[in-house]
Amino acid sequence: MTERPSMPSPEALACPLPLRDYPEIVLGHGGGGQLSSELLEHLFLPAFRNPALEERNDAAVLQLGDARIAIATDSFVVRPLFFPGGNIGELAVHGTINDLAMVGARPCCLSAAFIIEEGFPMEQLARITHAMGRAAEAAGVPIVTGDTKVVEHGHGDGCYINTTGIGRITSDLRLGPRRLVPGDRIVLSGTIADHGMAIMSVREGLEFEAPIESDTAPLHELVETVVEQAGTEIRAMRDPTRGGVAASLNEFASQSGLGIEIDDQAIPVAPAVQSACEILGIDPLAVANEGKLLAVVAPDAAEDVVHAMQRHRLGCRAAIIGQVVRDHPGMVVARTAIGATRVITTQIGEALPRIC
Amino acid sequence: MTERPSMPSPEALACPLPLRDYPEIVLGHGGGGQLSSELLEHLFLPAFRNPALEERNDAAVLQLGDARIAIATDSFVVRPLFFPGGNIGELAVHGTINDLAMVGARPCCLSAAFIIEEGFPMEQLARITHAMGRAAEAAGVPIVTGDTKVVEHGHGDGCYINTTGIGRITSDLRLGPRRLVPGDRIVLSGTIADHGMAIMSVREGLEFEAPIESDTAPLHELVETVVEQAGTEIRAMRDPTRGGVAASLNEFASQSGLGIEIDDQAIPVAPAVQSACEILGIDPLAVANEGKLLAVVAPDAAEDVVHAMQRHRLGCRAAIIGQVVRDHPGMVVARTAIGATRVITTQIGEALPRIC
Repeated sequence: MTERPSMPSPEALACPLPLRDYPEIVLGHGGGGQLSSELLEHLFLPAFRNPALEERNDAAVLQLGDARIAIATDSFVVRPLFFPGGNIGELAVHGTINDLAMVGARPCCLSAAFIIEEGFPMEQLARITHAMGRAAEAAGVPIVTGDTKVVEHGHGDGCYINTTGIGRITSDLRLGPRRLVPGDRIVLSGTIADHGMAIMSVREGLEFEAPIESDTAPLHELVETVVEQAGTEIRAMRDPTRGGVAASLNEFASQSGLGIEIDDQAIPVAPAVQSACEILGIDPLAVANEGKLLAVVAPDAAEDVVHAMQRHRLGCRAAIIGQVVRDHPGMVVARTAIGATRVITTQIGEALPRIC
Repeated sequence: MTERPSMPSPEALACPLPLRDYPEIVLGHGGGGQLSSELLEHLFLPAFRNPALEERNDAAVLQLGDARIAIATDSFVVRPLFFPGGNIGELAVHGTINDLAMVGARPCCLSAAFIIEEGFPMEQLARITHAMGRAAEAAGVPIVTGDTKVVEHGHGDGCYINTTGIGRITSDLRLGPRRLVPGDRIVLSGTIADHGMAIMSVREGLEFEAPIESDTAPLHELVETVVEQAGTEIRAMRDPTRGGVAASLNEFASQSGLGIEIDDQAIPVAPAVQSACEILGIDPLAVANEGKLLAVVAPDAAEDVVHAMQRHRLGCRAAIIGQVVRDHPGMVVARTAIGATRVITTQIGEALPRIC
C-alpha cells in the first residue's frame, strides 16, 4: 500500500487533475461529477473498450436476436438505509428501472445482489427485501435472480445492494444529447432535490413542519406517457440522480455542443426543501432526485408533453424550465429572479456522499 | 440494534435453525451452504416470489421476444484481491460467464459495478480493471455498462465487484436436477479445490514446491463442446464454486430425489492441493472451484463426453467420478480407497469465508 496522500485543496479541485495525481480513490470518484467522469474516461473505458460502453448512457443498448434490449446496472450504498419516503430496497428497484426507461426501454426483469455485513439485523433485511418485492410488483418488473455475500464486521456498512435490469426497446426512438437542436425545450416532471434533502435532513438532524420525503419512484410509465404523446420529438431523457439537474443539463450541453438556458423561477422546489438547502448552503440544482424526469423535446411538442405529464400522478408539477440555445456552447446558464445570469456547473467531486 | 447472539454450538448447527433463531446475519449466510439456502427460502423467495426465481438455478431463464435468454448475477468479495492465478477482476468475469453457461446459454454481455473503499490505490484498481478487460476480451463477452460507488474508509474492503450477465439459449436443451435418471454418470472436467486452496494458502502463509494457483477460467466453450457431443443426453450441469463439488452433488441429489455415489479415488486432486487440504483439515470436495464443470450425462454418452472434454485445454483431466443411484435418495455417498463408504454433506455455514 502506498502512503495516503493529503486531499487536494479546493483550488486544485476546481481544475480536475489527471488520475495519476490521485494515487488513491477519493469519495469524489463515486460522486457522479467530474472526478467520476475522469475515472470512467481514463481507467474504465480503456480497460473495457467496446462500442456499447462508449455511448456512455445510463443503460447500454444492444441487439439480441430480433430484440433490441437495454441493460443497466447500479449499486446502492445509501446511508442511512431507511429514510423518510423509503429505504435502500425500493431505491434499488426504482433506480435501475429508471435507468432503463431513460433509453426508451420497457423494463422486463431485475437481478438483485446483496453484500451484507456480519451482524446486520435480520429484521432490517426482511424490511428491505419486503420493500423491494413490493416495489418490483407495483412496477410490474420481477426480480428473477439474485446473490448474497456476507462480509465480516467492519468491512461493510449494513447492506449494499446491486440491481441490474434488462429492458426491451420496441419503438424506433433514438435518444441522446447529440440529437438536441437550438430552440428545444427542457421539461422537468416535478419538484427537485427531494431525495437528497430527505437523506441530508436525517443525517443532519434537521426538522421541518412538513417532513421532507424522498421522491423515489419508477418512471417507466411516465416515460411511456411522454413517448406516446411526443414520439420522435423527444430528443433526450435523464433521471437527474447523483449531481442533480445541474449534472444532467451539463451532460446535455457538453455532449450536444450547444448551450442551455434555464429560468431559476420556473424550477419547482418544495418550500421545506428550499429551506433545507438554504440552511445547508446547497444549490437544489445539484441535489439528487430519484423520481424525476428531465426531457428535451422539440418546441412544438413541449406544451403537450407538460400536459401529458401533469395527467400522470408522478408529473403533476411538470413545467418547462428552459431551452437549448446556440449561445455559450457546452455551458448551462440560469436566469435569476432579478434578471441576472449565473453559470451552472457540474460538481467536481462529492457534495453529498452516499446519497444513493 | 439487538445484542449480538453467541454463535450456536456445532451440535445446534447440525440441525439448521429457522431464521428467527438468527436475529442477525452471520458469515455462514453467505457461504453457499445450508444457512444460505435457508435465507433464500425463508426471506428472499417470499419477498420476491416469481416463477423464474423459484427455479433456483444459478441463472434465470426467460423469454424476451423470440429469444430465450438467461440472466445471472454475482458479487465478488474475495480476500485477498490478488492471489496466485488471478485476481478479483478475472474471477468476476469468469464467475458470471460460468453461471450463464450452466443453463446452456451463450454469454452475450456483462455489466460491472464497483463498490470501492476510499483510499484504495488507483494502481490496484487499474490492475483489476485491466485483468477484467482482458478476461472479457479473451472470452468474447464485452462489458457493456457499469457503475462506480465509493464508500468511506472502514466501510468496505478495498474493492467489491458485481457482474451481471445476459446469455442467449439457442438450443432446446432443458437442463436441471429433476431430469436425473438412475444410472446417469457424473463427469468432472478436472482437478478440484485449486481455487479455494490458492486463496487459503495465501491467507495461511502456506508454501509448497509448486505454488497452488486458482483455476479461474471461463467454461462456456467447454460447455459448448460437451453440448455438441452429447446434446440432450446431458441432464444437468454445475460449476462447483462455494461449497465445492460436495454442495453441487447434494443439490443434484436433493432436487432429483435420487442418490449419488462417487468413487473417492476417481476424483482428480493435485498433490499440493491434497497436502494443503490435509494441513488445514479440509475436505477437498467442500472447497470452491472457479473453472471446473460437473455434468450429469446419460450412461451411453459418458465416455464420449469425457473424451470431448479431454480434447479441450480446460478439460484435460476429465473423468467419470460416480453415478446416480436409486439407493439412499437425497444423499451423496463416497466409496473410499479401502472400500468403506462415507456420507458427503453440504456444509452448514462458511468453512472458507470470502473465497469468491
